[in-house]
Amino acid sequence: MVKRYLSLCSFDEALRQLRTSFPSPGRTETVHVAAALGRAVAAPLYARYSVPEVNLAAMDGIAVKSRDTFGASDQNPVTLRDYARVNTGNVIPDSFDAVIMIEDTWEDGDAFQIRKAAAPWQHVRPAGEDIREGRLVLPRGHVIRAFDIGALATYGIDRLDVTTANVGIIPTGSELVPLGERPRPGQVVESNTVMAQVLLGSMGAHCTRLPIVKDEPELVKNALVQAASANDLVIISAGSSAGTRDYTAGAIAAAGELLFHGVAVKPGKPMMLGKIGSTPVIGLPGYPLAAQTVLREFAVPLLETWGLAPVPKYPVKARLATPLASDLGFDEFVPVSVGRIGDRYWGMPRSRGAVVQMASVRSNGYTHIPASIEGYEAGHELEVFLTTDPANIERTLIFSGAIDPILEELGNIAHDQGLFIHTGSAGNTGAILSLERNACHAAPMSLPAFSLIKECRFIRPGLASLDLVFVNVASQEQGIASVKEVSLDHLDALCWINARKDSPARILFDSLLSSRNIPPSRIRGYGNEAATPGAVAAAIKAGQADAGICSKALAASHNLRFYPVAKEHYELVMRREMLADPRMVTLISLIKSPEFTAHLERSGAYDTSLTGQIRDASAKTIEIAGARPVTP
Amino acid sequence: MVKRYLSLCSFDEALRQLRTSFPSPGRTETVHVAAALGRAVAAPLYARYSVPEVNLAAMDGIAVKSRDTFGASDQNPVTLRDYARVNTGNVIPDSFDAVIMIEDTWEDGDAFQIRKAAAPWQHVRPAGEDIREGRLVLPRGHVIRAFDIGALATYGIDRLDVTTANVGIIPTGSELVPLGERPRPGQVVESNTVMAQVLLGSMGAHCTRLPIVKDEPELVKNALVQAASANDLVIISAGSSAGTRDYTAGAIAAAGELLFHGVAVKPGKPMMLGKIGSTPVIGLPGYPLAAQTVLREFAVPLLETWGLAPVPKYPVKARLATPLASDLGFDEFVPVSVGRIGDRYWGMPRSRGAVVQMASVRSNGYTHIPASIEGYEAGHELEVFLTTDPANIERTLIFSGAIDPILEELGNIAHDQGLFIHTGSAGNTGAILSLERNACHAAPMSLPAFSLIKECRFIRPGLASLDLVFVNVASQEQGIASVKEVSLDHLDALCWINARKDSPARILFDSLLSSRNIPPSRIRGYGNEAATPGAVAAAIKAGQADAGICSKALAASHNLRFYPVAKEHYELVMRREMLADPRMVTLISLIKSPEFTAHLERSGAYDTSLTGQIRDASAKTIEIAGARPVTP
Repeated sequence: MVKRYLSLCSFDEALRQLRTSFPSPGRTETVHVAAALGRAVAAPLYARYSVPEVNLAAMDGIAVKSRDTFGASDQNPVTLRDYARVNTGNVIPDSFDAVIMIEDTWEDGDAFQIRKAAAPWQHVRPAGEDIREGRLVLPRGHVIRAFDIGALATYGIDRLDVTTANVGIIPTGSELVPLGERPRPGQVVESNTVMAQVLLGSMGAHCTRLPIVKDEPELVKNALVQAASANDLVIISAGSSAGTRDYTAGAIAAAGELLFHGVAVKPGKPMMLGKIGSTPVIGLPGYPLAAQTVLREFAVPLLETWGLAPVPKYPVKARLATPLASDLGFDEFVPVSVGRIGDRYWGMPRSRGAVVQMASVRSNGYTHIPASIEGYEAGHELEVFLTTDPANIERTLIFSGAIDPILEELGNIAHDQGLFIHTGSAGNTGAILSLERNACHAAPMSLPAFSLIKECRFIRPGLASLDLVFVNVASQEQGIASVKEVSLDHLDALCWINARKDSPARILFDSLLSSRNIPPSRIRGYGNEAATPGAVAAAIKAGQADAGICSKALAASHNLRFYPVAKEHYELVMRREMLADPRMVTLISLIKSPEFTAHLERSGAYDTSLTGQIRDASAKTIEIAGARPVTP
Repeated sequence: MVKRYLSLCSFDEALRQLRTSFPSPGRTETVHVAAALGRAVAAPLYARYSVPEVNLAAMDGIAVKSRDTFGASDQNPVTLRDYARVNTGNVIPDSFDAVIMIEDTWEDGDAFQIRKAAAPWQHVRPAGEDIREGRLVLPRGHVIRAFDIGALATYGIDRLDVTTANVGIIPTGSELVPLGERPRPGQVVESNTVMAQVLLGSMGAHCTRLPIVKDEPELVKNALVQAASANDLVIISAGSSAGTRDYTAGAIAAAGELLFHGVAVKPGKPMMLGKIGSTPVIGLPGYPLAAQTVLREFAVPLLETWGLAPVPKYPVKARLATPLASDLGFDEFVPVSVGRIGDRYWGMPRSRGAVVQMASVRSNGYTHIPASIEGYEAGHELEVFLTTDPANIERTLIFSGAIDPILEELGNIAHDQGLFIHTGSAGNTGAILSLERNACHAAPMSLPAFSLIKECRFIRPGLASLDLVFVNVASQEQGIASVKEVSLDHLDALCWINARKDSPARILFDSLLSSRNIPPSRIRGYGNEAATPGAVAAAIKAGQADAGICSKALAASHNLRFYPVAKEHYELVMRREMLADPRMVTLISLIKSPEFTAHLERSGAYDTSLTGQIRDASAKTIEIAGARPVTP
């Protein structure tokens, strides 16, 4: 039976209920100033004394009464007997109001002669110049920065009250194992509460992660009642199994009141809001990205309403690198990778599967699509909230196309040089669309050896007008993978798993069949497309097909037999002007580096004879100058 | 004798030397994943197992072999006997490759009938869907975010290596007292090392603050040698007295090598760089803003070069609200307050005195003026690096004009409502220039009672073309302040301290003199202008003048006698369209709130009879709708 949500609470309404139903508990704590970074000030802070407390000399010289100096000039020098010798930082006795620099004086026994009047307060740091006693240093709610801490210390504030809240976090689910334990198949590490603890803790909350509660209604209810009595907010994290959620909703209702179950937000639909006594209870979905969304879009704003330090948001405007569909009626939150191409920011949306936590790890931002929007065309400008240092955008390279695992190692080496490679899996076809839009720095493509360019033209004639260049990353053999021995003369005796349309493996299979005069209709499984090359190998390994086309490396990693058929080149395809981008120059140096080619060779699957070679559409080799020296 | 720097190292050269002379010590430490927020990953992290580790059901139904289902249709139902009953999240036995939802099946004894073929992998979460065993989760150098921590935990990574560095911080200076102790006049709280500890600690460094070292060369040298042997970086904070710096430079040279002393950076000129063994030593200037600049522009980049987590920078483009001069040959760093006015960002530069730490506290960003620039005109667009959550800009109100202490309390109340008031002291004249440029949300002005508008026109006829409105904050009495009794009939018998040109106090004084037929030339001290109204009162209190014009409140706070002369209105002057800005509507509600008027009345100096009243240039009262309800 499929669980359905009879009525979903809208995003706006859910947020409104959350913010208006639960007044701030007003919890504060006293911390030492050195431990106050990022905390929100609970009560206005006033200077304990003036800084400086008295007038100080700002120069070495003599402290004088400015009225004594009026009228002094070269023609009419004035001799001062009432003065005090001071050095920079010295206290100026109360009766003096100016300092004359020592080089503007002429010593005359016990007196000093001067030839220029001193303006009142000249070269004096007046008392209270920085701040006066009792004046406001920081208002209530200010979030403390490192340099505020220096000021607080200077002004005598060594301890201060900051906002906090006690948050109890309950993990539920019989399939959960505690962090640090190895899950068995079908089990999951209890990780959502760690994420909640760290995120809400960064706002200044004190989070208590409670022990894992098994999927039993009475246990869940008891845990809720106890947590609600000891905390200002309870977060209950459902296990990922469907049944768990129902126990939780029932347990909240039994212990207090269930305000709503189900919200028109993706990911995050199974969210719950309840109330036990006056304590809010947020029910977190089990899937990680859904849990993230509910934490970020509901738990964080609630604590912000309560005066805790906000989680900073860095908005940028970016154009969509690919179209982005969205369900009408749902507020959707989508991980995005943002990079600058030319003078424009482009955002590449990432997988929205609620379980694919790597989509969030691999992104540098996210976007919010309101419920009223059905989606956007590629090129549409939208707002992306960055999740990394904004300076990282300048160092981000967007790759969209056919993704080979070797890019991970390249990404790792590049990261050492301050470059962040964000890859989007779009296949060869997507690669070409991205090049047309100029929405990627480079489009990685798997290209058959026989003709690089003919292949591109075959897929999309429009590309011919672009001046493209091809940077070889590596080459590898493609062939037939199988568990049992196969005869190349009886391909139609096998059950096949096929590769995606327009992929080189598919083109290779088609040309193999056509060279043997076998029509695809005679091939069992020809219509079964695996989503990725890896899925081809996995399907064969699992016995769901007898054979399929994949790379030698994939066959080896799945312990399959391998019959080589052709060589394939893995190329970074890009517009020629990209060769002038210093980031690309660095990247190409890295591809050529001994470190990277050694890695390719160690893996045993790649041929590096062309690695780092740059060719244009007419296969002419290109040399680029200015490649930064790269640490091997 | 004045200390001079014979040759200053340029900013770029200083940074280059710092970055190239000191290779990374490569220090790392192992932390628990829940303690890894904001830390930089020291070595690439790979998944310990695939997630999910095996194929899982994504729906409730039956797990089947997809090849068994080929050809099933309404006309040709297929009966399956080889299946497994599964619920969402259950492990799918190895031999099956698809799930059919339970509602698409017809139970038939031990078997299930189906009427539609199952595509391979339908409703299956394939093993490795999120990540495959051994694949890269995070590259070296990645700075860990809250949501990365959830992923690491899920993938079995409960401890990880992150970069760190040991930093020893030595405070020197006989005038220093430790944090927590009340300084005597002329003493300073030792606060710069606290700031350094917090700032560098936020990057992942382990900072040790060493005991205060008195200004004795041998003691300073010994402290340096010890700190250098135990740390990867030594920061020595000079006291603020001029002599200290020389001891430090000498001590570095005696203990190792002094690479340079003095850098063409403002504030921050007295910076030193040295080397003891292979350990870099950065000499921090004593003045707080100079210390900040050297920490942010030199110590932080060095630790970034060493792989520690960068301090995030959020750049925005803003127009200069006022002209900004800069010394040619010096890289200058200036605190700035940024706000949005209409659809433009404006940046208001703040005081650049190296000692005025409040300038940094009161700003929300800073700008870097390169050495080759002599300054910028008002309106010039420059880059500002924000020091707060960028979302705060939307909530920032820029006030430029005559600053009364009452704005602090208004700022404090406003902060509770999520509004940040940034005030720039520019006097009435500056207020009018800002209004002309549309570079402030409101210009606070002290206006004599007799005519609001005539006054503005008098100062700057151009303003007449603007449609201005006036929001009364409070009114107060202006008059003569003095220590001794004065006779209004013998004003020319006194020594005066005057107010700034174009200030209402100055205008009042002039009209007072003219009503008594006294020419300014007969007034002693007429030409001595105090920088602020507070400075007028302070000068009289200190005996530097007999009398001056200031407010009743200031006279009272300085224990001076007070002879009222006229009433003055403190008004927020703004362009009429600003009344449509919801932030201003909220602010006006706050000015009218019982909380704020009660505060005004408690202070005893203000008259609130007009508080919150809005008038236009023809003195007509304006009502505005939509003021948000404000918590009293």
